[in-house]
Amino acid sequence: MIATVEHATRILERTPATLRALLGGLTDEWTAPNEGPDTFSAFDNVGHLVHGERADWMPRARLILAQGANRRFEPYDRFAQNHESAGKSLAQLLDEFDALRAGNLRELQGWALTNGQLALEGEHPAFGTVTLRQLLATWVVHDLGHLAQIARVMAKQYREEVGPWRAYLPILDRP
Amino acid sequence: MIATVEHATRILERTPATLRALLGGLTDEWTAPNEGPDTFSAFDNVGHLVHGERADWMPRARLILAQGANRRFEPYDRFAQNHESAGKSLAQLLDEFDALRAGNLRELQGWALTNGQLALEGEHPAFGTVTLRQLLATWVVHDLGHLAQIARVMAKQYREEVGPWRAYLPILDRP
Repeated sequence: MIATVEHATRILERTPATLRALLGGLTDEWTAPNEGPDTFSAFDNVGHLVHGERADWMPRARLILAQGANRRFEPYDRFAQNHESAGKSLAQLLDEFDALRAGNLRELQGWALTNGQLALEGEHPAFGTVTLRQLLATWVVHDLGHLAQIARVMAKQYREEVGPWRAYLPILDRP
Repeated sequence: MIATVEHATRILERTPATLRALLGGLTDEWTAPNEGPDTFSAFDNVGHLVHGERADWMPRARLILAQGANRRFEPYDRFAQNHESAGKSLAQLLDEFDALRAGNLRELQGWALTNGQLALEGEHPAFGTVTLRQLLATWVVHDLGHLAQIARVMAKQYREEVGPWRAYLPILDRP
């Protein structure tokens, strides 16, 4: 069981600065293109992460910890950022993500979770029973998955530009 | 033709700080595991990028620009970091990468390349004729590909830890 709060936090606390280093100051040329209908641009990815900080990870963790009569999670709205990010700049979203993540990690640390609490269960709308430890691990993987997705959507801008090198660059043909 | 020096540099100049934000201060627990035999850990990825700054991108660009009798690139040694990184810490590699990349970008800017120069050709050992513009675009995609690879190899530490969520996290089963 490697997904302790401390081990997971080492990644979770780095994501806001990583996204700022990668995307801060870039113009729409790099951050607006997506990979086709219903896919995320770099900008959309950041908005999606902001939504997760507000609506998903911590509300689900609180629901599990409370162990009340209703332990069923609200479904995740994968496209909430389409309206929530409207009118915002990338710089604003990066700031929001930073502040929300910092607050969430402070609350998480404050809980000083025991192994017993990490084993508490909630009910995922599709999967059924899941534990708080699995939720925490998923939060980390979700961060890293979106970092990889941002790298991929930006790389694809140069899919044709690389010429024959495309054969050596699998990121350019990954869905 | 979007891969101009300026457009490409916006990504190339961000990679060192992005890697530092993502990896700086992490211990071996996160940075040493790889994805199996002959695959890269996060640490290996940074060493590989350091090698590329020294031995690949700029030497190839200079070879193309010189337009001498021999325009054939040296093959890229994908495993050079196995000996070159020996005895070095991740912090040292991040510093090296930062300094080498900054120097390379200064040299690249100093050339003030024209469209004519970007169309000059060299000879890739496997692909044959490639242009300087394609080399520049490949440099960018290579950076983003390794960023995605670092995110993936770290995410895979939690492949079992996420439980049923694995079905929603394609990064965990990507080769």
